[in-house]
Amino acid sequence: MNNIDNVFITGGAGFIGSNVADKMLNLGKNVTVYDNFSTGNRRFLEKALKNNKFSLIEGDVLDPILLEKSITNNDFVFHFSANADVRFGLEDPKRDLEQNTIATYNVLEAMRKNNIKNIGFSSTGSVYGEADIIPTPENAPFPIQTSLYGASKLAGEGLISSYCEGYNFKSWIFRFVGVLGERYTHGHLFDFYQKLKKNPLEMNVLGNGKQKKSYIYIQDCIESMIYAIDKSVDNINIYNLGCDEYIEVNDSVKIISDFLKLDPKLTYSGGKKGWVGDNPFIYLDTKKIRSLGWKENNNIDTGIIKTIKWLHENQWVFENDSKK
Amino acid sequence: MNNIDNVFITGGAGFIGSNVADKMLNLGKNVTVYDNFSTGNRRFLEKALKNNKFSLIEGDVLDPILLEKSITNNDFVFHFSANADVRFGLEDPKRDLEQNTIATYNVLEAMRKNNIKNIGFSSTGSVYGEADIIPTPENAPFPIQTSLYGASKLAGEGLISSYCEGYNFKSWIFRFVGVLGERYTHGHLFDFYQKLKKNPLEMNVLGNGKQKKSYIYIQDCIESMIYAIDKSVDNINIYNLGCDEYIEVNDSVKIISDFLKLDPKLTYSGGKKGWVGDNPFIYLDTKKIRSLGWKENNNIDTGIIKTIKWLHENQWVFENDSKK
Repeated sequence: MNNIDNVFITGGAGFIGSNVADKMLNLGKNVTVYDNFSTGNRRFLEKALKNNKFSLIEGDVLDPILLEKSITNNDFVFHFSANADVRFGLEDPKRDLEQNTIATYNVLEAMRKNNIKNIGFSSTGSVYGEADIIPTPENAPFPIQTSLYGASKLAGEGLISSYCEGYNFKSWIFRFVGVLGERYTHGHLFDFYQKLKKNPLEMNVLGNGKQKKSYIYIQDCIESMIYAIDKSVDNINIYNLGCDEYIEVNDSVKIISDFLKLDPKLTYSGGKKGWVGDNPFIYLDTKKIRSLGWKENNNIDTGIIKTIKWLHENQWVFENDSKK
Repeated sequence: MNNIDNVFITGGAGFIGSNVADKMLNLGKNVTVYDNFSTGNRRFLEKALKNNKFSLIEGDVLDPILLEKSITNNDFVFHFSANADVRFGLEDPKRDLEQNTIATYNVLEAMRKNNIKNIGFSSTGSVYGEADIIPTPENAPFPIQTSLYGASKLAGEGLISSYCEGYNFKSWIFRFVGVLGERYTHGHLFDFYQKLKKNPLEMNVLGNGKQKKSYIYIQDCIESMIYAIDKSVDNINIYNLGCDEYIEVNDSVKIISDFLKLDPKLTYSGGKKGWVGDNPFIYLDTKKIRSLGWKENNNIDTGIIKTIKWLHENQWVFENDSKK
């Protein structure tokens, strides 16, 4: 990212965003984080805030006027702000539409009005729906959406691609598997840890526990994004990012239980899926990003253990967690 | 459509919508048209308005309260209201987002709140972007969007599929090629006719004239939709609808010129595409809909001639046409 001096990060106080902010500061960039702190956390920016190359703007991506004013003088935008949880879309279908689709439109428009052309976007493996081909490549058959989350992210991808075609933007669209690591604060591993903390003897698992999921450790994820940004020549660059393996939900539970030295009795809500729209098998083909020379340094086991260790050492993240 | 008594049609005063309204009345359905008359036309409903099974509500799909109130007591919703022109997205990128994506969300929510579960949706072959596989099947490789129009329709598809998965809706998503016939009032054939009317001696064609496009005649299109609705068993039913042929833009111009007995000197704006985001080759694989027994009765030539004949006999459509 040698040609990039000024980086703007929406959702920069969140899990992925704040880790990217730290990384960009390490690389010597000027970094502006734009976050409404709805799910982001100031404590994730403690280190960044001490760096004089860092600025923080408290703002909402659904506030196009503030966004347009805040985004000026940047070379590159990481658009990470999102409703990042695939599970609760059906409770309030407007949330994904607003926070993922309309928000992405607002970011693109703020960029266009400020003549900023480069965007990195956190999409998701959920855009593949229940893929027929596993591991699923970027050019898998035209997917059918099974979640409002996936649909809203796919809509974001479509907007970004159209801006590349129409306004000469350059984009990096990253389809993540589940991301793990320090500052992970939502998702089913978070829930497992929290449930075991409340009741170490028994835990209910959504679905039959045999759902197969792939993950990637946050630092590997960031490295892969930088690889893609440095080595891509197209205007629209779409990459699956993930580990070259997957595990069953039951295995995740086992790793967490072992780490906590617990042996909970497991019960299951039943069925192949953990929730409506859950994809019982997510495993992405990552040949494309690997062809650039990238390789993960952490397998899924390590990623889970680092995550649980961090949660264990940062109990404050469970305070004020009223959602569950 | 034997089980369906009450049909609600958004954009029901438009080209496709008003023809579907007439057809549904012919089939004995109660029909409610919901249209804001931004591009729809009251004259298209002249016959329908004389039928006591017909109701007209002047309303905007971006008015969710009126929409929710208006949609009650229907069994089936044809959602046709849209910004239907792929060409002008870049002039105002908000238009496609609002009129195609957010509008579709509003329709789905109005349906959900009224416990209406069946939706037919006018998507587009533009969702395939510049497809690698031609003719392009429904399960073509994951497309990259090249137009805001295609992106906004794909976003609509994603929302609809998610509602099928999450709220047990049943949907028919129709990916049209260009639709031709009576009441056709926008698109490049409309422009050609209008240009030749203004200047019969000379005409400028966008692109190099060699763009390949497929079309379908409106009555064939409606028949194919009814086939799909009657014979589909899945919750999410996605169909390409089009003729089993394509022609070059130059051929369309020739057919129109011959019909008008003109021999204009043609000039070209140049390039493979007519406009940014134009797809220089649209031809859809329609094996899926044909497997249900459907077959078109009109080829593209006939469709174009019927269109031009109708325009010729309905000069009023060019009045108040301030756009071009």
